[in-house]
Amino acid sequence: MTDPVAIVFLLFPGITQLDFTAPAQALSRMPGARLAGAAASPDPIATDSGFAIVPTHDFAACPQADILCVPGGHGVADALGDAATIAFIARQAASARWVTSVCTGAFLLGRAGLLQGKRATTHWAYTHLLPRVGAEPAPGRVVEDGNLVTAGGVTSGLDFALTLIARLRGDAVAQAIQLAIEYDPAPPFVGGHPGRAPAAVTEGLKARVYDAAAARMAECLDRSLFA
Amino acid sequence: MTDPVAIVFLLFPGITQLDFTAPAQALSRMPGARLAGAAASPDPIATDSGFAIVPTHDFAACPQADILCVPGGHGVADALGDAATIAFIARQAASARWVTSVCTGAFLLGRAGLLQGKRATTHWAYTHLLPRVGAEPAPGRVVEDGNLVTAGGVTSGLDFALTLIARLRGDAVAQAIQLAIEYDPAPPFVGGHPGRAPAAVTEGLKARVYDAAAARMAECLDRSLFA
Repeated sequence: MTDPVAIVFLLFPGITQLDFTAPAQALSRMPGARLAGAAASPDPIATDSGFAIVPTHDFAACPQADILCVPGGHGVADALGDAATIAFIARQAASARWVTSVCTGAFLLGRAGLLQGKRATTHWAYTHLLPRVGAEPAPGRVVEDGNLVTAGGVTSGLDFALTLIARLRGDAVAQAIQLAIEYDPAPPFVGGHPGRAPAAVTEGLKARVYDAAAARMAECLDRSLFA
Repeated sequence: MTDPVAIVFLLFPGITQLDFTAPAQALSRMPGARLAGAAASPDPIATDSGFAIVPTHDFAACPQADILCVPGGHGVADALGDAATIAFIARQAASARWVTSVCTGAFLLGRAGLLQGKRATTHWAYTHLLPRVGAEPAPGRVVEDGNLVTAGGVTSGLDFALTLIARLRGDAVAQAIQLAIEYDPAPPFVGGHPGRAPAAVTEGLKARVYDAAAARMAECLDRSLFA
Protein backbone atom coordinates (compact mmCIF):
# COMPACT_ATOMS: atom_id res chain seq x y z
CA MET A 1 0.00 0.00 0.00
CA THR A 2 1.26 3.44 -0.94
CA ASP A 3 0.13 6.24 1.34
CA PRO A 4 -1.73 9.03 -0.49
CA VAL A 5 0.01 12.39 -0.85
CA ALA A 6 -2.10 15.52 -1.31
CA ILE A 7 -0.27 17.94 -3.61
CA VAL A 8 -1.88 21.38 -3.68
CA PHE A 9 -0.83 23.99 -6.26
CA LEU A 10 -1.98 27.58 -5.89
CA LEU A 11 -3.57 28.93 -9.10
CA PHE A 12 -4.10 32.64 -9.78
CA PRO A 13 -4.63 34.87 -12.84
CA GLY A 14 -1.41 35.67 -14.68
CA ILE A 15 0.33 32.50 -13.50
CA THR A 16 3.35 31.37 -15.51
CA GLN A 17 1.64 28.13 -16.36
CA LEU A 18 4.82 26.03 -16.75
CA ASP A 19 5.69 26.80 -13.09
CA PHE A 20 2.63 24.66 -12.31
CA THR A 21 2.31 22.30 -15.28
CA ALA A 22 5.90 20.99 -15.31
CA PRO A 23 6.03 19.89 -11.64
CA ALA A 24 2.40 18.73 -11.93
CA GLN A 25 3.39 16.42 -14.80
CA ALA A 26 6.12 14.74 -12.76
CA LEU A 27 4.42 14.78 -9.34
CA SER A 28 1.12 13.41 -10.68
CA ARG A 29 2.96 10.23 -11.75
CA MET A 30 4.24 9.59 -8.22
CA PRO A 31 2.51 6.62 -6.59
CA GLY A 32 -0.20 7.87 -4.23
CA ALA A 33 -0.31 11.38 -5.71
CA ARG A 34 -3.60 13.32 -5.36
CA LEU A 35 -3.22 16.58 -7.22
CA ALA A 36 -5.27 19.72 -6.57
CA GLY A 37 -5.14 23.13 -8.23
CA ALA A 38 -6.74 25.61 -5.86
CA ALA A 39 -7.96 29.11 -6.68
CA ALA A 40 -10.08 31.81 -5.05
CA SER A 41 -13.05 30.80 -7.22
CA PRO A 42 -13.83 27.74 -9.35
CA ASP A 43 -13.75 29.79 -12.58
CA PRO A 44 -11.03 29.05 -15.17
CA ILE A 45 -7.73 30.82 -14.52
CA ALA A 46 -6.21 32.84 -17.36
CA THR A 47 -2.53 31.87 -17.63
CA ASP A 48 0.31 33.87 -19.19
CA SER A 49 0.33 31.63 -22.29
CA GLY A 50 -3.00 32.38 -23.96
CA PHE A 51 -5.10 29.56 -22.50
CA ALA A 52 -6.96 28.90 -19.25
CA ILE A 53 -6.77 26.15 -16.64
CA VAL A 54 -9.71 24.90 -14.58
CA PRO A 55 -9.09 24.80 -10.80
CA THR A 56 -9.96 21.49 -9.16
CA HIS A 57 -11.03 23.26 -5.95
CA ASP A 58 -11.71 26.71 -4.58
CA PHE A 59 -9.83 27.72 -1.43
CA ALA A 60 -12.70 26.75 0.90
CA ALA A 61 -13.11 23.24 -0.55
CA CYS A 62 -9.41 22.46 -0.99
CA PRO A 63 -8.06 19.51 1.03
CA GLN A 64 -5.11 20.02 3.37
CA ALA A 65 -1.83 19.74 1.45
CA ASP A 66 0.95 17.34 2.26
CA ILE A 67 2.92 19.28 -0.35
CA LEU A 68 1.98 22.92 -0.90
CA CYS A 69 3.43 24.40 -4.10
CA VAL A 70 3.16 28.06 -5.06
CA PRO A 71 4.01 28.89 -8.68
CA GLY A 72 5.04 32.32 -9.96
CA GLY A 73 4.28 34.65 -12.83
CA HIS A 74 3.44 38.28 -13.50
CA GLY A 75 0.20 37.72 -11.56
CA VAL A 76 2.21 37.39 -8.34
CA ALA A 77 2.42 41.18 -8.04
CA ASP A 78 -1.37 41.42 -7.69
CA ALA A 79 -1.72 38.23 -5.64
CA LEU A 80 0.63 39.72 -3.01
CA GLY A 81 -2.13 42.19 -2.13
CA ASP A 82 -4.94 39.63 -2.04
CA ALA A 83 -5.76 38.79 1.58
CA ALA A 84 -7.67 35.57 0.76
CA THR A 85 -4.72 34.19 -1.25
CA ILE A 86 -2.17 34.96 1.46
CA ALA A 87 -4.44 33.53 4.16
CA PHE A 88 -4.87 30.34 2.12
CA ILE A 89 -1.09 29.93 1.78
CA ALA A 90 -0.50 30.54 5.49
CA ARG A 91 -3.27 28.15 6.55
CA GLN A 92 -2.15 25.35 4.21
CA ALA A 93 1.55 25.82 5.05
CA ALA A 94 0.89 25.51 8.79
CA SER A 95 0.05 21.80 8.42
CA ALA A 96 1.88 20.87 5.18
CA ARG A 97 4.74 18.42 5.29
CA TRP A 98 6.53 20.34 2.51
CA VAL A 99 6.17 24.03 1.68
CA THR A 100 7.45 24.79 -1.81
CA SER A 101 7.57 27.37 -4.58
CA VAL A 102 8.66 27.70 -8.18
CA CYS A 103 9.98 30.94 -9.68
CA THR A 104 8.46 34.13 -8.18
CA GLY A 105 6.00 32.06 -6.18
CA ALA A 106 8.67 32.42 -3.49
CA PHE A 107 7.46 35.98 -2.85
CA LEU A 108 3.95 34.74 -2.05
CA LEU A 109 5.46 32.36 0.51
CA GLY A 110 7.49 35.32 1.77
CA ARG A 111 4.43 37.56 2.02
CA ALA A 112 2.81 34.84 4.15
CA GLY A 113 5.81 35.02 6.52
CA LEU A 114 7.24 31.64 5.52
CA LEU A 115 10.73 32.67 4.36
CA GLN A 116 11.94 34.52 7.51
CA GLY A 117 15.54 33.44 8.14
CA LYS A 118 15.39 30.77 5.43
CA ARG A 119 17.70 30.00 2.52
CA ALA A 120 15.70 30.29 -0.70
CA THR A 121 15.78 30.94 -4.43
CA THR A 122 13.54 32.38 -7.14
CA HIS A 123 13.80 33.42 -10.82
CA TRP A 124 17.29 34.89 -11.44
CA ALA A 125 15.91 38.36 -12.17
CA TYR A 126 14.34 38.63 -8.71
CA THR A 127 16.84 37.02 -6.32
CA HIS A 128 18.00 40.44 -5.04
CA LEU A 129 14.49 40.99 -3.66
CA LEU A 130 14.47 37.87 -1.46
CA PRO A 131 15.90 39.73 1.59
CA ARG A 132 12.79 41.96 1.57
CA VAL A 133 10.83 38.93 2.79
CA GLY A 134 13.55 37.89 5.22
CA ALA A 135 15.13 35.19 3.04
CA GLU A 136 18.78 34.60 2.32
CA PRO A 137 19.37 34.04 -1.43
CA ALA A 138 21.09 30.69 -1.99
CA PRO A 139 22.67 29.26 -5.15
CA GLY A 140 21.23 26.37 -7.16
CA ARG A 141 18.08 25.57 -9.13
CA VAL A 142 16.52 23.79 -6.15
CA VAL A 143 17.18 25.04 -2.61
CA GLU A 144 16.16 23.03 0.46
CA ASP A 145 15.98 24.46 3.99
CA GLY A 146 14.18 22.09 6.34
CA ASN A 147 10.70 21.46 4.91
CA LEU A 148 10.97 24.52 2.64
CA VAL A 149 11.95 23.80 -0.97
CA THR A 150 12.21 26.70 -3.41
CA ALA A 151 13.03 26.42 -7.10
CA GLY A 152 14.52 28.94 -9.52
CA GLY A 153 12.86 30.27 -12.67
CA VAL A 154 10.10 28.42 -14.57
CA THR A 155 11.77 25.25 -15.95
CA SER A 156 13.57 24.56 -12.66
CA GLY A 157 10.20 23.25 -11.48
CA LEU A 158 11.02 19.99 -13.24
CA ASP A 159 14.29 19.52 -11.35
CA PHE A 160 12.45 20.50 -8.17
CA ALA A 161 9.67 17.94 -8.69
CA LEU A 162 12.05 15.06 -9.40
CA THR A 163 14.15 16.02 -6.36
CA LEU A 164 11.06 16.00 -4.15
CA ILE A 165 9.86 12.66 -5.57
CA ALA A 166 13.26 11.16 -4.73
CA ARG A 167 12.90 12.41 -1.12
CA LEU A 168 9.39 11.00 -0.78
CA ARG A 169 9.55 7.75 -2.75
CA GLY A 170 13.24 7.05 -3.31
CA ASP A 171 15.63 7.42 -6.22
CA ALA A 172 14.27 4.48 -8.24
CA VAL A 173 10.79 6.01 -8.48
CA ALA A 174 12.15 9.45 -9.39
CA GLN A 175 14.47 7.95 -12.02
CA ALA A 176 11.60 6.02 -13.60
CA ILE A 177 9.48 9.18 -13.82
CA GLN A 178 12.42 11.12 -15.30
CA LEU A 179 12.78 8.38 -17.93
CA ALA A 180 9.02 8.25 -18.58
CA ILE A 181 8.96 11.97 -19.37
CA GLU A 182 12.22 11.57 -21.35
CA TYR A 183 13.91 14.30 -19.35
CA ASP A 184 17.30 14.08 -21.02
CA PRO A 185 17.51 17.75 -21.89
CA ALA A 186 19.38 19.11 -24.90
CA PRO A 187 18.80 22.87 -24.87
CA PRO A 188 19.70 24.43 -28.23
CA PHE A 189 21.81 27.11 -26.54
CA VAL A 190 24.20 27.37 -23.64
CA GLY A 191 22.92 30.14 -21.45
CA GLY A 192 19.65 29.39 -19.67
CA HIS A 193 21.13 31.28 -16.71
CA PRO A 194 22.86 34.70 -16.61
CA GLY A 195 26.01 32.98 -15.31
CA ARG A 196 26.37 31.30 -18.72
CA ALA A 197 24.35 33.49 -21.13
CA PRO A 198 26.06 36.05 -23.36
CA ALA A 199 26.02 39.37 -21.48
CA ALA A 200 24.19 41.09 -24.36
CA VAL A 201 21.31 38.60 -24.14
CA THR A 202 20.96 39.10 -20.38
CA GLU A 203 21.26 42.88 -20.55
CA GLY A 204 18.78 43.11 -23.42
CA LEU A 205 16.23 40.98 -21.59
CA LYS A 206 16.64 42.99 -18.40
CA ALA A 207 16.18 46.26 -20.28
CA ARG A 208 13.09 45.01 -22.16
CA VAL A 209 11.40 43.05 -19.37
CA TYR A 210 12.97 42.38 -16.02
CA ASP A 211 14.22 45.76 -14.76
CA ALA A 212 10.62 47.02 -14.86
CA ALA A 213 9.13 43.74 -13.66
CA ALA A 214 11.47 43.55 -10.65
CA ALA A 215 10.78 47.19 -9.79
CA ARG A 216 7.03 46.47 -9.87
CA MET A 217 7.51 43.38 -7.68
CA ALA A 218 9.53 45.47 -5.18
CA GLU A 219 6.77 48.10 -5.08
CA CYS A 220 4.02 45.51 -4.60
CA LEU A 221 6.03 43.76 -1.91
CA ASP A 222 6.59 46.99 0.01
CA ARG A 223 2.94 48.02 -0.36
CA SER A 224 1.61 44.65 0.83
CA LEU A 225 4.16 44.11 3.62
CA PHE A 226 3.87 47.59 5.11
CA ALA A 227 0.22 48.35 4.40
CA MET B 1 6.52 45.20 -37.37
CA THR B 2 6.58 41.53 -36.49
CA ASP B 3 4.31 39.35 -38.61
CA PRO B 4 1.77 37.38 -36.58
CA VAL B 5 2.26 33.62 -36.31
CA ALA B 6 -0.76 31.42 -35.61
CA ILE B 7 0.30 28.48 -33.45
CA VAL B 8 -2.40 25.81 -33.18
CA PHE B 9 -2.11 22.97 -30.66
CA LEU B 10 -4.47 20.00 -30.87
CA LEU B 11 -6.14 19.25 -27.53
CA PHE B 12 -7.87 15.94 -26.74
CA PRO B 13 -8.89 13.97 -23.62
CA GLY B 14 -5.99 12.08 -22.04
CA ILE B 15 -3.37 14.46 -23.43
CA THR B 16 0.02 14.43 -21.70
CA GLN B 17 -0.38 18.06 -20.75
CA LEU B 18 3.35 18.91 -20.68
CA ASP B 19 3.59 17.95 -24.38
CA PHE B 20 1.42 21.02 -24.92
CA THR B 21 2.19 23.31 -21.98
CA ALA B 22 6.01 23.28 -22.28
CA PRO B 23 6.20 24.33 -25.96
CA ALA B 24 3.23 26.68 -25.38
CA GLN B 25 5.22 28.45 -22.64
CA ALA B 26 8.18 29.10 -24.93
CA LEU B 27 6.28 29.72 -28.19
CA SER B 28 3.78 32.13 -26.59
CA ARG B 29 6.70 34.45 -25.75
CA MET B 30 7.82 34.65 -29.38
CA PRO B 31 7.09 38.07 -30.90
CA GLY B 32 3.91 37.87 -33.01
CA ALA B 33 2.73 34.59 -31.45
CA ARG B 34 -1.04 33.93 -31.48
CA LEU B 35 -1.66 30.72 -29.60
CA ALA B 36 -4.73 28.50 -30.03
CA GLY B 37 -5.66 25.24 -28.32
CA ALA B 38 -8.24 23.50 -30.53
CA ALA B 39 -10.52 20.64 -29.55
CA ALA B 40 -13.57 18.88 -30.93
CA SER B 41 -15.82 20.83 -28.54
CA PRO B 42 -15.30 23.95 -26.38
CA ASP B 43 -15.64 21.94 -23.14
CA PRO B 44 -12.63 21.64 -20.81
CA ILE B 45 -10.22 18.83 -21.72
CA ALA B 46 -9.25 16.36 -18.99
CA THR B 47 -5.46 15.99 -19.05
CA ASP B 48 -3.36 13.11 -17.71
CA SER B 49 -2.28 15.15 -14.67
CA GLY B 50 -5.51 15.57 -12.72
CA PHE B 51 -6.62 18.97 -14.03
CA ALA B 52 -8.42 20.31 -17.11
CA ILE B 53 -7.49 22.86 -19.76
CA VAL B 54 -9.99 25.08 -21.58
CA PRO B 55 -9.71 25.01 -25.39
CA THR B 56 -9.50 28.44 -27.00
CA HIS B 57 -11.41 27.21 -30.08
CA ASP B 58 -13.36 24.23 -31.33
CA PHE B 59 -12.23 22.69 -34.62
CA ALA B 60 -14.77 24.63 -36.71
CA ALA B 61 -13.80 28.04 -35.31
CA CYS B 62 -10.05 27.48 -35.20
CA PRO B 63 -7.93 29.80 -37.36
CA GLN B 64 -5.55 28.33 -39.94
CA ALA B 65 -2.23 27.41 -38.32
CA ASP B 66 1.14 28.70 -39.41
CA ILE B 67 2.53 26.16 -36.94
CA LEU B 68 0.41 23.08 -36.27
CA CYS B 69 1.53 21.12 -33.18
CA VAL B 70 0.08 17.77 -32.15
CA PRO B 71 0.91 16.64 -28.59
CA GLY B 72 0.79 13.04 -27.36
CA GLY B 73 -0.49 11.08 -24.41
CA HIS B 74 -2.49 7.96 -23.60
CA GLY B 75 -5.48 9.63 -25.26
CA VAL B 76 -3.76 9.30 -28.66
CA ALA B 77 -4.92 5.67 -28.91
CA ASP B 78 -8.57 6.78 -28.91
CA ALA B 79 -7.97 9.91 -30.99
CA LEU B 80 -6.51 7.74 -33.79
CA GLY B 81 -10.02 6.42 -34.39
CA ASP B 82 -11.76 9.80 -34.26
CA ALA B 83 -12.55 10.94 -37.81
CA ALA B 84 -13.13 14.60 -36.88
CA THR B 85 -9.75 14.83 -35.17
CA ILE B 86 -7.86 13.26 -38.07
CA ALA B 87 -9.71 15.44 -40.60
CA PHE B 88 -8.82 18.56 -38.55
CA ILE B 89 -5.13 17.60 -38.55
CA ALA B 90 -5.11 16.89 -42.30
CA ARG B 91 -6.95 20.12 -43.16
CA GLN B 92 -4.71 22.30 -40.95
CA ALA B 93 -1.51 20.59 -42.10
CA ALA B 94 -2.34 21.18 -45.78
CA SER B 95 -1.79 24.94 -45.40
CA ALA B 96 0.51 25.12 -42.36
CA ARG B 97 4.04 26.41 -42.74
CA TRP B 98 5.28 23.96 -40.10
CA VAL B 99 3.73 20.60 -39.19
CA THR B 100 4.95 19.39 -35.81
CA SER B 101 4.40 16.90 -33.02
CA VAL B 102 5.63 16.15 -29.52
CA CYS B 103 5.86 12.60 -28.08
CA THR B 104 3.20 10.18 -29.40
CA GLY B 105 1.44 13.01 -31.21
CA ALA B 106 3.58 11.77 -34.13
CA PHE B 107 1.15 8.88 -34.61
CA LEU B 108 -1.77 11.27 -35.10
CA LEU B 109 0.25 13.02 -37.83
CA GLY B 110 1.02 9.57 -39.24
CA ARG B 111 -2.65 8.54 -39.16
CA ALA B 112 -3.39 11.69 -41.20
CA GLY B 113 -0.85 10.50 -43.79
CA LEU B 114 1.74 13.16 -42.98
CA LEU B 115 4.74 10.95 -42.12
CA GLN B 116 4.95 8.85 -45.31
CA GLY B 117 8.62 8.61 -46.29
CA LYS B 118 9.66 11.13 -43.62
CA ARG B 119 12.33 11.00 -40.94
CA ALA B 120 10.64 11.36 -37.55
CA THR B 121 10.81 10.68 -33.83
CA THR B 122 8.45 10.07 -30.90
CA HIS B 123 8.64 8.93 -27.25
CA TRP B 124 11.44 6.34 -26.89
CA ALA B 125 9.00 3.55 -26.00
CA TYR B 126 7.15 3.90 -29.32
CA THR B 127 9.85 4.58 -31.94
CA HIS B 128 9.62 0.99 -33.25
CA LEU B 129 6.03 1.71 -34.32
CA LEU B 130 6.91 4.67 -36.57
CA PRO B 131 7.34 2.48 -39.69
CA ARG B 132 3.65 1.48 -39.39
CA VAL B 133 2.77 5.03 -40.46
CA GLY B 134 5.48 5.08 -43.13
CA ALA B 135 8.08 7.02 -41.14
CA GLU B 136 11.75 6.30 -40.74
CA PRO B 137 12.82 6.56 -37.07
CA ALA B 138 15.65 9.09 -36.71
CA PRO B 139 17.89 9.84 -33.71
CA GLY B 140 17.73 13.02 -31.65
CA ARG B 141 15.25 14.83 -29.41
CA VAL B 142 14.16 17.09 -32.28
CA VAL B 143 14.02 15.74 -35.86
CA GLU B 144 13.51 18.03 -38.85
CA ASP B 145 12.53 16.82 -42.32
CA GLY B 146 11.47 19.70 -44.54
CA ASN B 147 8.57 21.48 -42.84
CA LEU B 148 7.95 18.49 -40.55
CA VAL B 149 9.43 18.76 -37.06
CA THR B 150 8.87 15.92 -34.60
CA ALA B 151 10.06 15.83 -30.99
CA GLY B 152 10.77 12.91 -28.66
CA GLY B 153 9.03 12.20 -25.36
CA VAL B 154 7.27 14.85 -23.26
CA THR B 155 10.04 17.22 -22.10
CA SER B 156 11.69 17.29 -25.52
CA GLY B 157 8.89 19.73 -26.43
CA LEU B 158 10.95 22.46 -24.80
CA ASP B 159 14.01 21.79 -26.97
CA PHE B 160 11.66 21.57 -29.97
CA ALA B 161 10.01 24.93 -29.25
CA LEU B 162 13.30 26.79 -28.79
CA THR B 163 14.67 25.20 -31.98
CA LEU B 164 11.60 26.34 -33.91
CA ILE B 165 11.77 29.86 -32.45
CA ALA B 166 15.39 30.09 -33.61
CA ARG B 167 14.31 29.10 -37.15
CA LEU B 168 11.49 31.66 -37.22
CA ARG B 169 12.95 34.61 -35.31
CA GLY B 170 16.68 33.97 -35.09
CA ASP B 171 19.02 32.75 -32.39
CA ALA B 172 18.97 35.94 -30.31
CA VAL B 173 15.20 35.72 -29.75
CA ALA B 174 15.35 32.01 -28.90
CA GLN B 175 18.27 32.55 -26.52
CA ALA B 176 16.40 35.34 -24.72
CA ILE B 177 13.34 33.11 -24.26
CA GLN B 178 15.54 30.25 -23.02
CA LEU B 179 17.05 32.66 -20.46
CA ALA B 180 13.64 34.07 -19.49
CA ILE B 181 12.35 30.60 -18.63
CA GLU B 182 15.70 29.80 -16.97
CA TYR B 183 16.15 26.68 -19.06
CA ASP B 184 19.54 25.70 -17.70
CA PRO B 185 18.54 22.15 -16.79
CA ALA B 186 20.07 20.20 -13.92
CA PRO B 187 18.21 16.87 -13.84
CA PRO B 188 18.80 15.05 -10.55
CA PHE B 189 19.68 11.81 -12.37
CA VAL B 190 21.57 10.78 -15.47
CA GLY B 191 19.21 8.66 -17.50
CA GLY B 192 16.28 10.52 -19.01
CA HIS B 193 16.73 8.29 -22.05
CA PRO B 194 17.15 4.49 -22.22
CA GLY B 195 20.57 5.02 -23.81
CA ARG B 196 21.79 6.41 -20.49
CA ALA B 197 19.37 5.03 -17.88
CA PRO B 198 20.25 1.99 -15.75
CA ALA B 199 18.89 -1.09 -17.57
CA ALA B 200 16.84 -2.10 -14.52
CA VAL B 201 14.99 1.24 -14.54
CA THR B 202 14.17 0.96 -18.25
CA GLU B 203 13.13 -2.71 -18.05
CA GLY B 204 11.00 -2.08 -14.94
CA LEU B 205 9.22 0.82 -16.60
CA LYS B 206 8.59 -1.15 -19.78
CA ALA B 207 7.20 -4.09 -17.81
CA ARG B 208 4.93 -1.86 -15.69
CA VAL B 209 3.78 0.61 -18.36
CA TYR B 210 5.20 0.73 -21.84
CA ASP B 211 5.07 -2.84 -23.15
CA ALA B 212 1.29 -2.78 -22.73
CA ALA B 213 0.94 0.85 -23.85
CA ALA B 214 2.93 0.25 -27.04
CA ALA B 215 0.91 -2.92 -27.79
CA ARG B 216 -2.31 -0.92 -27.40
CA MET B 217 -0.96 1.83 -29.67
CA ALA B 218 -0.04 -0.78 -32.31
CA GLU B 219 -3.53 -2.27 -32.13
CA CYS B 220 -5.26 1.11 -32.40
CA LEU B 221 -2.97 2.10 -35.30
CA ASP B 222 -3.74 -1.09 -37.20
CA ARG B 223 -7.46 -0.80 -36.52
CA SER B 224 -7.64 2.84 -37.64
CA LEU B 225 -5.31 2.50 -40.63
CA PHE B 226 -6.91 -0.64 -42.04
CA ALA B 227 -10.52 -0.07 -41.00
